[in-house]
Amino acid sequence: MAQLQRIAIAPAQFQQDQILLTPQQLHYLGRVLRLREGDRFIAMDGMGKWWLTQLTGKQAQVLETLSVTTELPITITLMIALPKGSGFDEVVRCCTEIGVTCIAPVISDRTLLHPSPQKLERWRRIAAEAAEQSERAFVPTILEPVAFREALSTVNGHKYICEARGNYPHLLNCLPNKGQMTNDSELIIATGPEGGWTETEIANAIASGFQAVSLGRRVLRAITAPIVALSLVTAACEV
Amino acid sequence: MAQLQRIAIAPAQFQQDQILLTPQQLHYLGRVLRLREGDRFIAMDGMGKWWLTQLTGKQAQVLETLSVTTELPITITLMIALPKGSGFDEVVRCCTEIGVTCIAPVISDRTLLHPSPQKLERWRRIAAEAAEQSERAFVPTILEPVAFREALSTVNGHKYICEARGNYPHLLNCLPNKGQMTNDSELIIATGPEGGWTETEIANAIASGFQAVSLGRRVLRAITAPIVALSLVTAACEV
Repeated sequence: MAQLQRIAIAPAQFQQDQILLTPQQLHYLGRVLRLREGDRFIAMDGMGKWWLTQLTGKQAQVLETLSVTTELPITITLMIALPKGSGFDEVVRCCTEIGVTCIAPVISDRTLLHPSPQKLERWRRIAAEAAEQSERAFVPTILEPVAFREALSTVNGHKYICEARGNYPHLLNCLPNKGQMTNDSELIIATGPEGGWTETEIANAIASGFQAVSLGRRVLRAITAPIVALSLVTAACEV
Repeated sequence: MAQLQRIAIAPAQFQQDQILLTPQQLHYLGRVLRLREGDRFIAMDGMGKWWLTQLTGKQAQVLETLSVTTELPITITLMIALPKGSGFDEVVRCCTEIGVTCIAPVISDRTLLHPSPQKLERWRRIAAEAAEQSERAFVPTILEPVAFREALSTVNGHKYICEARGNYPHLLNCLPNKGQMTNDSELIIATGPEGGWTETEIANAIASGFQAVSLGRRVLRAITAPIVALSLVTAACEV
């Protein structure tokens, strides 16, 4: 199955046993992937469903519904202070591969970048590509950036804020053990901007039920910290 | 201490209580960091020693030897099949931050890139910069690329080869527990190129005492896999 090409479709494109393909998808399948009439590929709706399909005119005929085993049993949200430059692209790509469910970019006191709406579309495209490449069944949701203070009040679950300075316990020692996690468990991990969170931001997060944690004794860049944190969380869920 | 600028020096530059600075270092300190006569900064010899120093003419006067607590208690070698493009720069940067001791690039059957000697210098510069930025006491060693088969016979310790396909146990379940690790313990983690290791390479590694392991159920890029693996190893050493 691994050799078949995969594309992400919108749930609304699936109608009975047919998937109506958009002109962009037809172009991609035909011109980029070089598929021809009758060739098979995998369509994923980004909501956990995969279908084995066959290219038939401008549609994909569904041959089989596939079972996927590549998704984590829980929901993981990365709340990330937007880093400067194009570093966020790499965070979206890596964290999608690693298994994140939702990425919630936030504007913190030390955030330098205030992204344009075009950026959001770009991040969503990167997430869809990375989900395909890593054989995931879900495309992670990327939310619109909001102020950190506002984001704090919108999340529920096991909440952690990562901070390089200060004597906090290691994230890996603070995660709920497997017996405490169920299919609807939610984990929220917040990572800071260049220069770290301000003291007020840490205090606000703790007041909102977040636990302050460390990712180890070295100081990680704003781009590396979320990748390290997600690596630990997903491994802890799978072992 | 965190606010002081840090620079990496060669051990030979340290003579009695003075550090003889190179013209490049003097330029960096004066023109880039804007330090003036009498200003203090940290010099690191990349071998575990940090000194608090003061800029004095073309030398740095050592004021104090610092104790560093940012290094891991064990030696971690990343044996990595060179990925294509400039992805290796990011691997060197991230893995240095995370805490790697040595990076051994290898040429595998599916390696596309055969790097020039200039690349090695570039990677060493990136490692030195990242070690400074992450407040490490050691600059990781970057070895010259060699054939994978040759590299297999040169390493000793707890050896793991990561592979996305196949039903291998998770790396996090295979690491020695803390009681089994001592200050001279060595961990070697091998990660593959785009397209993965060949079956022969996996078999050769296992014959050389490597244990084949998984990094989770999703397929990681050649660039993401070493970052995830190192995140798990360093966290397991610190918790």
